[in-house]
Amino acid sequence: MSVYTTVTPEELRTWLKSYYSLGVLTDLQGIASGIENTNYFVTTSHGRFVLTLFEKLARDDLPYFINLIAHLARHGIPCPSPIATLQNDYLNQLNGKPACIVSCLKGASITAPTADHCAQVGEMLANMHLAGASYPSHMPNPRGPAWWRATAPQVMPKLDADDAALLTEELRFQSLYRHEDLARGVIHADLFRDNILFDGDKLAGVIDFYYACDDVWLYDLAITVNDWCVTEQSELDLERMQAMLSAYHAVRPLTAIERGAWPVMLRAGTLRFWLSRLYDFHFPREGELTHAKDPNHFQRLLRHYVANHGDLTRHWV
Amino acid sequence: MSVYTTVTPEELRTWLKSYYSLGVLTDLQGIASGIENTNYFVTTSHGRFVLTLFEKLARDDLPYFINLIAHLARHGIPCPSPIATLQNDYLNQLNGKPACIVSCLKGASITAPTADHCAQVGEMLANMHLAGASYPSHMPNPRGPAWWRATAPQVMPKLDADDAALLTEELRFQSLYRHEDLARGVIHADLFRDNILFDGDKLAGVIDFYYACDDVWLYDLAITVNDWCVTEQSELDLERMQAMLSAYHAVRPLTAIERGAWPVMLRAGTLRFWLSRLYDFHFPREGELTHAKDPNHFQRLLRHYVANHGDLTRHWV
Repeated sequence: MSVYTTVTPEELRTWLKSYYSLGVLTDLQGIASGIENTNYFVTTSHGRFVLTLFEKLARDDLPYFINLIAHLARHGIPCPSPIATLQNDYLNQLNGKPACIVSCLKGASITAPTADHCAQVGEMLANMHLAGASYPSHMPNPRGPAWWRATAPQVMPKLDADDAALLTEELRFQSLYRHEDLARGVIHADLFRDNILFDGDKLAGVIDFYYACDDVWLYDLAITVNDWCVTEQSELDLERMQAMLSAYHAVRPLTAIERGAWPVMLRAGTLRFWLSRLYDFHFPREGELTHAKDPNHFQRLLRHYVANHGDLTRHWV
Repeated sequence: MSVYTTVTPEELRTWLKSYYSLGVLTDLQGIASGIENTNYFVTTSHGRFVLTLFEKLARDDLPYFINLIAHLARHGIPCPSPIATLQNDYLNQLNGKPACIVSCLKGASITAPTADHCAQVGEMLANMHLAGASYPSHMPNPRGPAWWRATAPQVMPKLDADDAALLTEELRFQSLYRHEDLARGVIHADLFRDNILFDGDKLAGVIDFYYACDDVWLYDLAITVNDWCVTEQSELDLERMQAMLSAYHAVRPLTAIERGAWPVMLRAGTLRFWLSRLYDFHFPREGELTHAKDPNHFQRLLRHYVANHGDLTRHWV
């Protein structure tokens, strides 16, 4: 459950009246998903909002994330739009925690995407990359190659020989590439199915930007394909991938260099999540064991990509 | 009709793709209301928007209005939210006209408001005043006392003796007051029934900020009461006025000085619209005769206020 810090209606009513022009509180409901922050649905006479109390993120990093969603929202990306205080700040404080309030999007996440869903996600991701190009702030990727190299030695002793060899070989393989010739900008970096909302069959929202950072755009597309276009058997679904890539390409045309780098990117995106899931599985934070996800899905996907590396450029748009 | 400049779907598709991250155009419909600008409903894969081509407003004034609605929207006021271009500008150009695209609000205007509707409008107006307090730009009121004094001599020769005496006396009466002790800030200045959208019985939008400027907040409230809380017989509806004032007061408490100035403000708001309607009626702009509204409603309302001046402070919240 994700209410770590309790907020009473009376506390919120006073807070809203003191700091916001959001009208009168009519409903307050804790949200039972999410593992990093405390979230509430807040309904006022002006509409429906989400209140977030930040429990773990570094306070200095919060302006990057909050200003980013404000930037993307004002470019027409359907992400939560932060609400400014009467003092004109997005970031505030409530019950001792950094807090902000954002618009509430319609829709719900889906678990079994079709090719059409994947096309909508690809189109949105390309527009998000274009809209992010004018965002002035920067954030290095906290889960980039430096983190891979620091994390691999910690999980290596927990792996069997086959997995250890796979991880060692993939780190070596990825170290051969620098990707300095690939287009870069703001990436979401975690655009899994649970971070897109559909209203019926129409994409209605993009949420959870707390892994957003500067990195290679194609890497973001690979992370997204790895979740949306992969089967339960941890294999690529070509039809869904082609739908997503075509829709992305129609908005931001992919270059020959990006096409050549695609198999490497799919593997890099797989490595990143295999590593973080291995780490979370073997080094669970206190009280969080139930959230640790199975790392083996990404191990199988990586083996699938290694085995089919030569084919991965062929099924392009 | 309000499409002065035609935009074809093909032109808009190219324009959107060149300048915005708004997805793919799926529908385009001219809007047949409004008399100052060309407006279209624009539907894309990201949602529903309104495209405005500015036909008459001074280009230099547009950033004030567009940045104002952006400011209010990010404070949770349900007004149209302008969409930024890839170059990060709200103001753009299309077919030779200054143009912008904004989010489309739900709801429709109502003609027969109840006390509950008036309360919602009062609450929203107070929050709009509070939210506007941190808006950094300024715009003098183009329909303030200087404009009254310049306009009255032009319409005076068209009036009968009774109306000329009423106008002369009201100008003299208003000139006795300076209102320097009343709270000021951004005002909407035209919050008539056609500029508020209700979704069912719930206030869902505030539109048309092209008369917004800096002036006395209580004057804005008086303009609003003059439309929402006045009968077809041009008399004040006390129940509706009290509902609006109470709701406003609950958000931004009105002072004893404001209470004292209330009858003067009601009359000032009436004078301003009587004058502009007289001017538009007697000096119609070419092709706009059909839009000229009857000035006599505000003449009757002014007589009603003059006759009941002493009572107007009594029916306060």
